[in-house]
Amino acid sequence: VATDNKLHQFLDLSERTEMLMSFDSIETVERLGKLACERRMEANVLLIIDIGFHRLGVPVGEAVSTAIAMARVRGIRLRGVQIYAGHIYSSASLDEATRIAHDEIAQAAEVADRIRKAGIEIDIISIGSTPSSLIIAERRWTGATELRAGNYVFMDRQQVRLGIANYDDCALRVFATVISKPSRDRILIDAGSKTLTSDPARPPFTGFGHVVNKRGIELSMLSEEVTTCHLATDADSVSVGELLEIVPNHACMMTNLAERIYVGRNGLIEDAWTAQARGKVW
Amino acid sequence: VATDNKLHQFLDLSERTEMLMSFDSIETVERLGKLACERRMEANVLLIIDIGFHRLGVPVGEAVSTAIAMARVRGIRLRGVQIYAGHIYSSASLDEATRIAHDEIAQAAEVADRIRKAGIEIDIISIGSTPSSLIIAERRWTGATELRAGNYVFMDRQQVRLGIANYDDCALRVFATVISKPSRDRILIDAGSKTLTSDPARPPFTGFGHVVNKRGIELSMLSEEVTTCHLATDADSVSVGELLEIVPNHACMMTNLAERIYVGRNGLIEDAWTAQARGKVW
Repeated sequence: VATDNKLHQFLDLSERTEMLMSFDSIETVERLGKLACERRMEANVLLIIDIGFHRLGVPVGEAVSTAIAMARVRGIRLRGVQIYAGHIYSSASLDEATRIAHDEIAQAAEVADRIRKAGIEIDIISIGSTPSSLIIAERRWTGATELRAGNYVFMDRQQVRLGIANYDDCALRVFATVISKPSRDRILIDAGSKTLTSDPARPPFTGFGHVVNKRGIELSMLSEEVTTCHLATDADSVSVGELLEIVPNHACMMTNLAERIYVGRNGLIEDAWTAQARGKVW
Repeated sequence: VATDNKLHQFLDLSERTEMLMSFDSIETVERLGKLACERRMEANVLLIIDIGFHRLGVPVGEAVSTAIAMARVRGIRLRGVQIYAGHIYSSASLDEATRIAHDEIAQAAEVADRIRKAGIEIDIISIGSTPSSLIIAERRWTGATELRAGNYVFMDRQQVRLGIANYDDCALRVFATVISKPSRDRILIDAGSKTLTSDPARPPFTGFGHVVNKRGIELSMLSEEVTTCHLATDADSVSVGELLEIVPNHACMMTNLAERIYVGRNGLIEDAWTAQARGKVW
């Protein structure tokens, strides 16, 4: 959010319900404060802190001074801090992921403590990715008031790679039909990058998804509507017309692509969901 | 297409208009022929031939024998051959792309000739990717009856990489706002993998798109709603709130993601398009 019309939208919503917005730049918060004052409102904001993902956020060393500056802005109420340790997804092992999750909650608690000691009353310490949330919940580490775990709803292959889930935990699956078998080592399925997305697997995982109902099938090369798969094992075990059940690399992207998600239990389809916010990312 | 309900859909449409479907396996064509005979119809089919992309298609060496087998199936009319030299997108230079385009049209013409000599009258020689179509059109090479050039409608960064287009030829652009500047060398924009798609650039190109209205901005790391960009040059030249104009790596994927495409001419928005087939890839 950087433009006044978006800030006004946020204030419009704040009049109707409790809203929070996260910022890492004092300049934008000053603009928001000015607009809020004009409307005789107070806007709730969080300060984003970067602990190693290097996306949004001020460095830990600048957290207290930025918090003080934000809290001083008229029309603004600084409610807390927000951290996202997205680099946890690059972990090579569950041990490394556990260290990052520990670092995330420890740094969040420490920086919140330092902000409070500077005289700013904050009540929200928001952290979390799906892996860190699960690690933190399991170990009962305290300090955060909110865990933001989006992937948790479905789980996917990246969680399996990190050791956070197994394939049985992954609720989102693609059912694709084998449409061609042009050679002994190659099949084509009718799901491509418009279904599975081109989000790659991280090493040592490869390919664009994992086939759970058949062994030795590598989803090697995506086209838009089809995927070229290579057969590592017995070619006779796969035939044209067969249905493959695939756990995708990244569940979040798929819900943005599918018009409908069929919901099943015990082998029966019970419902069809539509992602309301699908495609609405501007 | 591999299941009977899809083959029936094709025959339903064939009753209403002239339809063509492409196959690389005699088994599926036999099934289609059986269904067509039951409906007292004749289905138009093309034989897919693989000349090096290794996706769909029978090898060139098996083209004539497969064509003979397909032409013999009752209920089937073999109309011609189809080739897609998708490996042209891996070319390191325009010279290499030109060689692949030449190979594509030469092999298509030759294999069609051999099928005709085997006594099968075919009238369609269908080839084409956007790069090969443009190369073939420019050099006036003959032999094909159809060029399938889908990317041509918009053009994109992969065509620029191959030397087929320049950025001015690319009609599809993403307008993204700079929403944060957390450090001197890093900015965030409000377009991520749900807009630009995670289709990667091929070497020597890097990043997830090219900023045309500002130099030295590398679209380094995609998140779903934002992209982390690194600044190679003067950090003061970019400020929060600014609009970046981006040519994406792969135009085809973007039209599948956007709810609306705004159409402009001479700086004015004239229309808004909706991709009718968006999300309809099953």
